[in-house]
This record gives sequence, C-alpha cells and structure tokens, in this order.
Amino acid sequence: MNDFGKRELNQVGISNEFSSRHDFHIADWLRNAERHTMQQMLSMDGSPDIISFALGLPAPDSFPNQAYAEAVSHLLARDRVAFQLTPPFQPLKRHIVEMMKERGIDCTEEQVFLISGAQQGLDLVARMFLNQGTQVILEEASYTGFHKAIEPFQPEILTVPVDPQTGIDLDAVETLLLDGARPAFIYTMSDGHNPLGISMPRENRVRLVELARQYHIPIIEDDAYGFIYYQETPNPPLRALEDKWVLYIGSFSKILGPSLRTGWMIVPSELTSKLAVIKSLIDIDCATFTQRAISAFIDLGYLKSQLTYVRQDYCERCDIMIEALKKYFPPQARWHKPNSGVFIWVELPEQVDTMKLLKAAVEQEKVAFVPGSAFSINAQACLSNSLRLNFTNCRRDKIEDGIARLAKVVKTMIK
Amino acid sequence: MNDFGKRELNQVGISNEFSSRHDFHIADWLRNAERHTMQQMLSMDGSPDIISFALGLPAPDSFPNQAYAEAVSHLLARDRVAFQLTPPFQPLKRHIVEMMKERGIDCTEEQVFLISGAQQGLDLVARMFLNQGTQVILEEASYTGFHKAIEPFQPEILTVPVDPQTGIDLDAVETLLLDGARPAFIYTMSDGHNPLGISMPRENRVRLVELARQYHIPIIEDDAYGFIYYQETPNPPLRALEDKWVLYIGSFSKILGPSLRTGWMIVPSELTSKLAVIKSLIDIDCATFTQRAISAFIDLGYLKSQLTYVRQDYCERCDIMIEALKKYFPPQARWHKPNSGVFIWVELPEQVDTMKLLKAAVEQEKVAFVPGSAFSINAQACLSNSLRLNFTNCRRDKIEDGIARLAKVVKTMIK
Repeated sequence: MNDFGKRELNQVGISNEFSSRHDFHIADWLRNAERHTMQQMLSMDGSPDIISFALGLPAPDSFPNQAYAEAVSHLLARDRVAFQLTPPFQPLKRHIVEMMKERGIDCTEEQVFLISGAQQGLDLVARMFLNQGTQVILEEASYTGFHKAIEPFQPEILTVPVDPQTGIDLDAVETLLLDGARPAFIYTMSDGHNPLGISMPRENRVRLVELARQYHIPIIEDDAYGFIYYQETPNPPLRALEDKWVLYIGSFSKILGPSLRTGWMIVPSELTSKLAVIKSLIDIDCATFTQRAISAFIDLGYLKSQLTYVRQDYCERCDIMIEALKKYFPPQARWHKPNSGVFIWVELPEQVDTMKLLKAAVEQEKVAFVPGSAFSINAQACLSNSLRLNFTNCRRDKIEDGIARLAKVVKTMIK
Repeated sequence: MNDFGKRELNQVGISNEFSSRHDFHIADWLRNAERHTMQQMLSMDGSPDIISFALGLPAPDSFPNQAYAEAVSHLLARDRVAFQLTPPFQPLKRHIVEMMKERGIDCTEEQVFLISGAQQGLDLVARMFLNQGTQVILEEASYTGFHKAIEPFQPEILTVPVDPQTGIDLDAVETLLLDGARPAFIYTMSDGHNPLGISMPRENRVRLVELARQYHIPIIEDDAYGFIYYQETPNPPLRALEDKWVLYIGSFSKILGPSLRTGWMIVPSELTSKLAVIKSLIDIDCATFTQRAISAFIDLGYLKSQLTYVRQDYCERCDIMIEALKKYFPPQARWHKPNSGVFIWVELPEQVDTMKLLKAAVEQEKVAFVPGSAFSINAQACLSNSLRLNFTNCRRDKIEDGIARLAKVVKTMIK
C-alpha cells in the first residue's frame, strides 16, 4: 500500500471523482457558524456612494498619523529589542494604570493584562470560564461579537430585557439568580453601550455589582467606548465599585485606532496567570512592538491631545445627528442623547420592521445602519422596530443629509 | 434581598471569611494547565550572565530598525486609513504569494489567510478540526506550542517516533492509518524542524503527502523556520507537492521580528471562510496596521536584503557552533548539521539525563539549553538524553565559549 497515492489514482483514472467525494471534517460547532456581523459588514461597507451609519468605527480624520510616525521613529532610534519576543511591555501597563485613574479605577500593574483588542478579551473570558453548556446571562440587545465569542461553547443563554434609557434590567437579573441560575458570568457595557448608546445610571451600577458579590458571579464589563464620554464627570465604571467580581476590558481601538489591535483587561491578579496560559496557546502573546509604539506615543504626550480631540469631535457629531433626528424624523420616533460612546439607538413605531427599512434605505436613499434585531442573540421580535445609528464613521458633512434621507424612507413605512 | 452585598456583609463582620471561601469557577481544561514552555522560559531567560542556547529567537543584531522606521513613515505619510479597521491587507497577500514562489509553492491570494503569527495558525487549526477527544497524530519530539494549542480539546494523541536525521517515522504513521486511526490532522515541520533541526528528505515528503491524499488526512505544515535555509536549492515544502491536504503555516517572526505577530496560512480557498469565522470571534481580525507596515517594508525592497543577511549570519553562527561541538564535546555525542532553521539537536549517551544536565550547566557554568524531554507530549524517556541548542539568539562571540563550558558539564556526567 506504500506510496499509493494521487499519482496511482491518476493512473487508474479515478482521481477526480474520488477526491471530490472527500471533504475536510470540520469541528461540529463550526459547521453552521457564520462570521461576526461586523466583519461581514466591513466587507459590504466599501461602497463610496452609501452614507453609512452602520459600523462603530472611529472617524478617519481622528487618526494621528504624524504623531504615531514620530513615536515609532522615536522608539526605533532607541530600542534594540523592539522586534524581539519579550514579556508584555511593562511601561504600557504603567500608562494604563494612570489612564484607569481617569476612569475612577484604582488598579495595579499586576492586574493589567494586555490583549489584542476587546474582542480577544471576550474570547479569553469565554475560554477561561465556559465549559460546554455553561449558563451565561446576556442582555437582549448586546454586542454581537460577544455572541460569537461564546458560541463555540454552546452555552445556555439566559437573556434579560434592556431598557433603552437605563440598560440591563436588574430585576430580571435578580429573578434569574433567585430562581437558581448560576451563570459563568454576566456580560454588560456600563458606558457607551453597544448598541443602546446609554450609560447605566449610578444606582444600577451599585445594584449590579452587589448582585455580583452576593452571588459570586463575575461581571464582564466591556468598556471599549468608556473613554469617549461627553459629560464633565462621568459615572464610575463597575470596576471602580468592585475589584474582585468585575473583570474590566478596555481598548485603544476607539481612541487611537482599531487596526493596532491593542487593548487590556483589569482582573484580580489571581486570574492573570490563567489568562497567560490561554494567551500562550492562542498566539504566544500580543504584539509587543505595538505595545512599545503606543507607549512611546503616550510618553510623547500625544494620547492626551488625541482624547481631547476625539471627545470634542464626536460630541459635535452627536449633536449634529440629534438635531437632524429632531428636524427630520417623525414625532413617533424615540431616542436618547448618549453621554458616551458612538451610537444612538432609535425606536420606531411597532409596525416598522427595521430589517425591511434597511433594505429600502440602501436601495432608495443609499443610507445604511444596523437593524435592532442584529443585536439580539435570539433575533427577538421586541427589537425589530429599533435601529442603531453611528455618528463617528461617516463624513461629518454628510450626517444631516443621511438622516434626512433615512427619515424619508421611515415616513413611507409609518403611513 | 435587594442591595444586600459586601457593604452589609462588612457591617456584620463576616466579609473576609465569607469572600475568601468563594473563588472563580474556571473551565475544566484550564484548572491544571500551564503556560507554554517558551513563555515560561522567556520570563526566566532574562539573566544577563547566562549564555542561553534555549529559545529559538532571532539574533537582536538582525533587526531592521532603521528600514522599518522608514517603512512606517512612508506608510503614514500616504495612507489615511492605516489605523482603521479594514479587511486583511491585500497587497501583503500579494507579497506573500511572491514569497511562496521562492519556496516552490504556487498559490493564489484567495488561499492566503493572514494570522497573528504561527501559534495563532495552530490555534485556528485546532479550533477548525477538533471536537473533544478527536484523534491527532504527533511526532514524539515536536513544538511544545502545538501541544498547548490542542490541549483544550483533550484530543486522543497518537505519537509516532522521530529519527534525528530524517524526522517523522512514516512507517509508524502508515501503520496507525492501516490500523484504522483517522486523526483530524498530522502536525509536522518539513524544514528547520523544532526541535530536531532537520529538513525532511525529499522521498519522505513525497510519501507523507501521498499518505495524506490516500487517507484524506490534513497535514499541518508548520514552516515558521522554512525561509531560513542554508542550501542553494532546498527541498520543496509539503504544500508544493499537494495543494488540498497540506495546510501551510508561515511567519514573519523568524525573518523580521516575532514582536510583530504577523504570519500567514496557505489553505484551500474553501477553508478560508471557516478560518474567517473563527478569526472574527477570537480577535475580529489581525492588526492591519502591521500588515500595511510590513507591506511597505517589502515595497521598499528591504525584505530581500533582510533575508540575505539573516541566512548568511545564521549560517555562520551554525558553523561556529558545529565547530565548537566538534572541538569540545565528547566523541559519544551525536548531532547533524542543519540545512535550515535555528536549532541543533544533540544526542548524548543514554545514561545522561539532560534535565539534570541543564540544572548543573546553569548552576556550574551559566549555560542554558532546552532538554529533549520538554518536546515530548508524554515526556518520553527516549528523549531524555537529548538536548536542543539554538545558535541565533545568544551573542555570536559567546557561542564557542558557551559550548566549551557546556561540554565540561557533559563530560562530568559521562564518566
């Protein structure tokens, strides 16, 4: 049987039928899995004549090309091991400890775990806490990337309703826990909620972390948008209220650039060794070159001005969109001005199916957004009349026009 | 029960006993898992007075600081979306198709899948093909990072012996397959084998891919060291012989810098959509900033000179180490000069336990290496008299001295 392969099969003329009948054996969970909605949209989002309010990406004008080039040159003129595999870059951890103070969080360098963006933090959390079929508590409207991260573990998902003004329904969470649910964790975003755009009221923050303490359920606080706030004194993140049961995820994606794939977690130091085990097997470790470059960027004082610019620009963009919504949208539409983040959540009358609205808006008016049902892990009917609008990634001078055009299509569906 | 949390527990004075009895529920597989050996060593390897032949890292002198700074400046002066989240950077895929030609591989851009280094490729492969308990065929001595990547799936591991001159024992592979084994894949390195340092003979390459075709078993060809070859005309990789059943993994880590965390896979295009699903949930996608920077580096012609430098320098380092082994090591020691890669595998007489040798070498002579048993997933006794020496990561002028010192300790253990 030795050496009996394709060549021999070719000789007897059965190669094609034979091999075409044999396919790869893919892991069970992956057979029907689809790509992350965002990645799919990224491929579709390229059309230049579409005004897109779909993706939660930074404004291209915000990117600090010149400052970052200076930081990289600065780094490479001085650092002989910038290309070498080294442990995670400690000076960046120091910078992050300082940044966290601004968010009201006290933490130590030992609690900072560097990751390749917030999505990797979600994958790490899933790998760290989930066995097959473990319970997870999830908001009815939440970040689709989180749905994807837990999918391979086929968890038992317990959904709780969300309020478009206050977020996660804590009565529902408590009822589940009182009824005996013991989820591996609760996932939420206390600021700049994706997709709701809301910031959780302070009393809800206090109550949520107390539930976490009482029932020993870790809360995964995804603060990807937390540094983009529009108030003088934003509420403290959940991690500021509880340092054991809240695992915090932060990212440079929205404040510097998502293509750098650099973020961080703040976790109890007893968990960093577990995270390091997982990290070592999934990609050895993060790109320390980028960690060094970002650290140089911060050393040179550029992060502070970057944050000031981004907050100011995004706040103005948000105002432009809110004014346009007031001016053009029908009176039945409901929204709240966000205190943080890059999204506005709009609720339309119940008869409007925003999936159909999207199709019509793209075809008739060349405007895109994400329909509410995309954020529901069960495609809940209750979100089908809602939509998520992003105000940071389209051209600033197109926001009003885009909302006016979208309003036209909305009105045809309400009549 | 509302709002009954830590504060109340503090009031009744039971906070500490209470919370200390409650720990995080970690996923089953992770409870006793340890970090990747390499990551552990990286933490230990810092001592400046140790001559270390342990890690398979590039020579710090090889890093192209100035050229890369120029590439980044070039990029940032021209590219307005270098920081934006975009699909994987197509021009880098084009460059990789060209690089692959040099390795004798014909592939298309559609078959190139960009990853964050070879380790992520291994994790992707594990996620793509493994269910819990699936069979895997593995060489008795192989890359420890691969052991880690498959560990969460608790696969049934079928090990096959290796020959220190020709690598994987194909008779053993065929016997397993004839006996009914149907592994999810076979993992191997045809060039610059880690830890054996060998390049597989051509006839073995042909036989292995024919077994793969005949039994429809994917071969994971880890070619992380493949571009570092010391012959005029190296043998073609397995992927050059078979374009469906060989999944190829390449990396910029050893030829440019591991801290960039950028590599690639060459897979049948029907699998790239599956890989994209996994990528989207583990980290959304790679750092396209780095993809753009590496692409600019190649555009400017620097990769070619980098490869020439690295091959020349590493070939000379290898010669220095081989000469030192001849000069200082006892006649019973056996090794083969590698045709590629960064390792020399040394076999000592059976009575030498290289784990004990390592302890003595570090303590008495301040020399480090990796004992053979570290590369065995079962800590096979048959590797306990072997050691892996790296010749690229220590100072070039310390190689002879380090081998002389190590030889002293070896001789005390043979007598």
